[in-house]
Amino acid sequence: MLLEAIYHVPRDKWAYAYDTSTIHLRVRTQKNNVECVVAMTGDKYDWERTYYEITMEKAASDGMFDYWECAVSPQYKRLSYGFRFHNDNETIYLTDTGLSHDYPYPPGGYFEFPYIHEVDVFKVPDWAKEAVFYQIMPERYCNGDTSNDPEGTEPWGGQPKYDNFFGGDLQGVMNHLDDLTELGINAIYFTPLFLSPSNHKYDIVDYKQVDPHFGTNELFKQLVDQCHERGIRVMLDAVFNHCSDQFPPFQDVVKHGADSKYKDWFHVNEFPVAVNDGIPTYDTFGFFANMPKFNTANPEVKKYLLEVAEYWIKEIHVDGWRLDVANEIDHDFWRDFRKVVKGANPEAYIVGEVWSDSLIWLMGDEFDSVMNYPFADKVLAFFNGAMDGRTFADNMASLIMRYPQQTNEVVFNMLCSHDTQRLLNRVGNDIRRMKLPVVFLFTYIGTPCIFYGDEIGLTGGDDPDCRKCMEWDPDKQQTELYDFYKLMIQLRRKHKALREGRFRFLKADPNDPCIIYERVDDKVHFIIWMNNTDQPRTLTHPLVKNDWYDALSQEKVDTEDGIMNINLDAYGYRILCRSLQ
Amino acid sequence: MLLEAIYHVPRDKWAYAYDTSTIHLRVRTQKNNVECVVAMTGDKYDWERTYYEITMEKAASDGMFDYWECAVSPQYKRLSYGFRFHNDNETIYLTDTGLSHDYPYPPGGYFEFPYIHEVDVFKVPDWAKEAVFYQIMPERYCNGDTSNDPEGTEPWGGQPKYDNFFGGDLQGVMNHLDDLTELGINAIYFTPLFLSPSNHKYDIVDYKQVDPHFGTNELFKQLVDQCHERGIRVMLDAVFNHCSDQFPPFQDVVKHGADSKYKDWFHVNEFPVAVNDGIPTYDTFGFFANMPKFNTANPEVKKYLLEVAEYWIKEIHVDGWRLDVANEIDHDFWRDFRKVVKGANPEAYIVGEVWSDSLIWLMGDEFDSVMNYPFADKVLAFFNGAMDGRTFADNMASLIMRYPQQTNEVVFNMLCSHDTQRLLNRVGNDIRRMKLPVVFLFTYIGTPCIFYGDEIGLTGGDDPDCRKCMEWDPDKQQTELYDFYKLMIQLRRKHKALREGRFRFLKADPNDPCIIYERVDDKVHFIIWMNNTDQPRTLTHPLVKNDWYDALSQEKVDTEDGIMNINLDAYGYRILCRSLQ
Repeated sequence: MLLEAIYHVPRDKWAYAYDTSTIHLRVRTQKNNVECVVAMTGDKYDWERTYYEITMEKAASDGMFDYWECAVSPQYKRLSYGFRFHNDNETIYLTDTGLSHDYPYPPGGYFEFPYIHEVDVFKVPDWAKEAVFYQIMPERYCNGDTSNDPEGTEPWGGQPKYDNFFGGDLQGVMNHLDDLTELGINAIYFTPLFLSPSNHKYDIVDYKQVDPHFGTNELFKQLVDQCHERGIRVMLDAVFNHCSDQFPPFQDVVKHGADSKYKDWFHVNEFPVAVNDGIPTYDTFGFFANMPKFNTANPEVKKYLLEVAEYWIKEIHVDGWRLDVANEIDHDFWRDFRKVVKGANPEAYIVGEVWSDSLIWLMGDEFDSVMNYPFADKVLAFFNGAMDGRTFADNMASLIMRYPQQTNEVVFNMLCSHDTQRLLNRVGNDIRRMKLPVVFLFTYIGTPCIFYGDEIGLTGGDDPDCRKCMEWDPDKQQTELYDFYKLMIQLRRKHKALREGRFRFLKADPNDPCIIYERVDDKVHFIIWMNNTDQPRTLTHPLVKNDWYDALSQEKVDTEDGIMNINLDAYGYRILCRSLQ
Repeated sequence: MLLEAIYHVPRDKWAYAYDTSTIHLRVRTQKNNVECVVAMTGDKYDWERTYYEITMEKAASDGMFDYWECAVSPQYKRLSYGFRFHNDNETIYLTDTGLSHDYPYPPGGYFEFPYIHEVDVFKVPDWAKEAVFYQIMPERYCNGDTSNDPEGTEPWGGQPKYDNFFGGDLQGVMNHLDDLTELGINAIYFTPLFLSPSNHKYDIVDYKQVDPHFGTNELFKQLVDQCHERGIRVMLDAVFNHCSDQFPPFQDVVKHGADSKYKDWFHVNEFPVAVNDGIPTYDTFGFFANMPKFNTANPEVKKYLLEVAEYWIKEIHVDGWRLDVANEIDHDFWRDFRKVVKGANPEAYIVGEVWSDSLIWLMGDEFDSVMNYPFADKVLAFFNGAMDGRTFADNMASLIMRYPQQTNEVVFNMLCSHDTQRLLNRVGNDIRRMKLPVVFLFTYIGTPCIFYGDEIGLTGGDDPDCRKCMEWDPDKQQTELYDFYKLMIQLRRKHKALREGRFRFLKADPNDPCIIYERVDDKVHFIIWMNNTDQPRTLTHPLVKNDWYDALSQEKVDTEDGIMNINLDAYGYRILCRSLQ
């Protein structure tokens, strides 16, 4: 056995309470090196009577490792445990004292999950498991009220620049709620709405006021109410890492320097605040002088921002916060943020913007979820031909094994955003090739999000080009693409199996870009077939039952001698299913 | 390169802020598999200008792995980083996206330590680095006031039983402060002092009152003041997991069942509270019906216990809390506990009782330290002949690599306690063999603690035998042992090198129980030689300089032709040092 590959620690994603009675254990071994792993569990205060062995399931495999998983429900909320690894040659034990060939006498020196405390259990909102999000930049979605247009507003549909405006607003969104309902989405993620000099509004001047170019707080409340009437949840963008340099407290520091009563609201390294050789004398987002970084450890700042966080949830009834530059804010702040937000609405959804490994924020006391940029990168790399099916499956397994199951169920999956190129651009502007990643998005684990306009074929390169105005001219919309999105959204929303069912690759081979995978719960079994090549291709897989049909066309699809043969066009896909009831 | 052995995650002990300007990075490779590891670091917002390479140091090796470490001080508090591994055959890269033979283009996909926030930095009290603790069970140390003896108090020095009393009290401790000063200790850890029916007082009835059999709050305050005048700190025992079944709120639950206003103070699974077949209907410590477990998530319980935590620090000026059964209390409670305690005294020392891997409590927001039972177990296993020098060194390295440096500097090292057999019993009742582990304790990394009476040769098996009365008859004290303890304490307290200097084994070989190790700072270089066998032995080590002397006798000790030869009796040791100034 390759002992160096075995890994477990009694915490974070390796040992966590899934709910108030269940502990999930995970352990890692070298790929294909171990045949069987057994969790040896019990209550340390009465080991003999409570001892229980659980054969672990191989839950995932990536390029180097197998990951074994089991769920344990200790009778008295306390768990001590060790692992026993078997293969043909040997038996190895792992406990808190290390690896051993000899049986470690229990329970002293065993790993411990000392007690399941409800207050520490990581709970995520159930609705987020059902949600299909639609991301809207209000300035670019629809201009529903020209009376509030900024000075110099350009004609709708022009070329986006860093600093130009097209007049989009909340009335524009309200005008299209029927369309959003028609599309099938049930949650909106708004990029920032609050008073700000920019078009993107990530530099905020007043956190308690909707930007007048977008509308009023009252109008936004109406919008939220109308959304709720339609079963649509609303998530806002919390830009708490930094503000605009026009934010009054910062202006006070600009004016009064070290004498300002707001001097500790920011991280000022040298007074007066200035920019020397491009480097501000105060901490900023990146090196942008117009975005001074908040000192979120300052009690006054914290109070202000937490009041903001609470206000929009409690008074305006928004359903969640997406946290901008979340990883650059202190953990102490986010812990209190969670308490305030969940106190105002226990079902509020908290999604951090973190681009890399985010586990540290996903232990139950900070975020529910993160924007899954690594998902987008891996999925697009695969569908763009940069990896074969096996490597793709390995990568997906790695991502799943990054986080506890709670987060995996609501991780914010998207294929592009206001901070990346448009999806269509990311697949070589080929609409045929756009569909496979979208099918994958809607049939995979996690909460999917569409960036406004992707569904009608909006294009765009890097920021600001990806922030084009929504295309409302029906002649310029890709209606076939739109119908496809609508169908996929319907399908996901209809079937719990596609949201919470078990996921497994059935085909994911080296040197082959075609994949087959399944999702299954107790009601429906889905099998998705994908030809990720530019040539027609027939994929085959043995299937015992013969009651399969096409989930989109409802056509019956037959096996031949226990083999399902699926003919696919270039970049074609097929979604088969059968009822299990 | 054995890729499966390489390990790093961008959090906990692998990447942490050591102080407000320094990040420590650690990465693991297979033992002797990698020649050189380089950290590739920079600020992601200006990578080119801030890029900096750091060659990592091999900080420790255990049986399977090498651990590489470096300190980074990022100019703008933000750090992105990757690792480059070299050996003769290949170069491998590790970033957040995984291992790669190809250079990963920076900084996208690199690991991140997004920003050093002072509020998140793990700070431990400086005084704990200087401390030599003495653990006292007040009931067994000295009876200074017979007027407060419990009914049925037995004559001093009798056989301890689970429920008998010998009359020890606070006045007894006060009577011996001169002796403690003479011994050289500068910190006392008291097992519980508060009102309780038992002799050990781990089942508390009133958390705000010193047990009348020990004295009064006023007397204790005098004791603390007298300690402080002598430069002795005082740490109390916080028994917050459970209380006595005589605790009034629990008695109220006993009486009124589900109608009690205290019913949510505990975890009652079924009313009325009862014990069925030895299992209480309410959660307890272990299965002890007389120790009902607190519901520490209940705001009233939390408020009560946090007031207690604050009271003894703020009003009585105690210097720290040892946390009983710390791992079975919720993290949310301990986070607030830390805020309250550090708010009352930022230099308060917080030591959790956790017997296994405790990293989850040692991230900066819960404890400073834990009782290092694994240290005791490994040290005694080695000095009892259960492992050779190499295995011992491997085990010590594993323990050091468990925690961030902050904790290692103040981890609570002891060789026995009220919950284990006495040290003398743990080394076969052989005083000669007791000295080596004690020398190791006082010359190793971490905060040492002596259990009262070890220094005069008190014996005792498992609880309650280990809780014997202190021996005050000079004829029955092992005075030579006492002098040895005194000398070792003096030595440690005199030399910062022995407390904070770099530790390294110079000899730790397979199949050899003799070891040589060094501790060194910028002032003094210590080399400690240990013959852990029952035969005389000469240990040799090449030493370039020839200005060594014996740290205890001050005798000069010469090398011969660049080799130091040290003759040691059975179980002998020698502590050499030289000045570096």
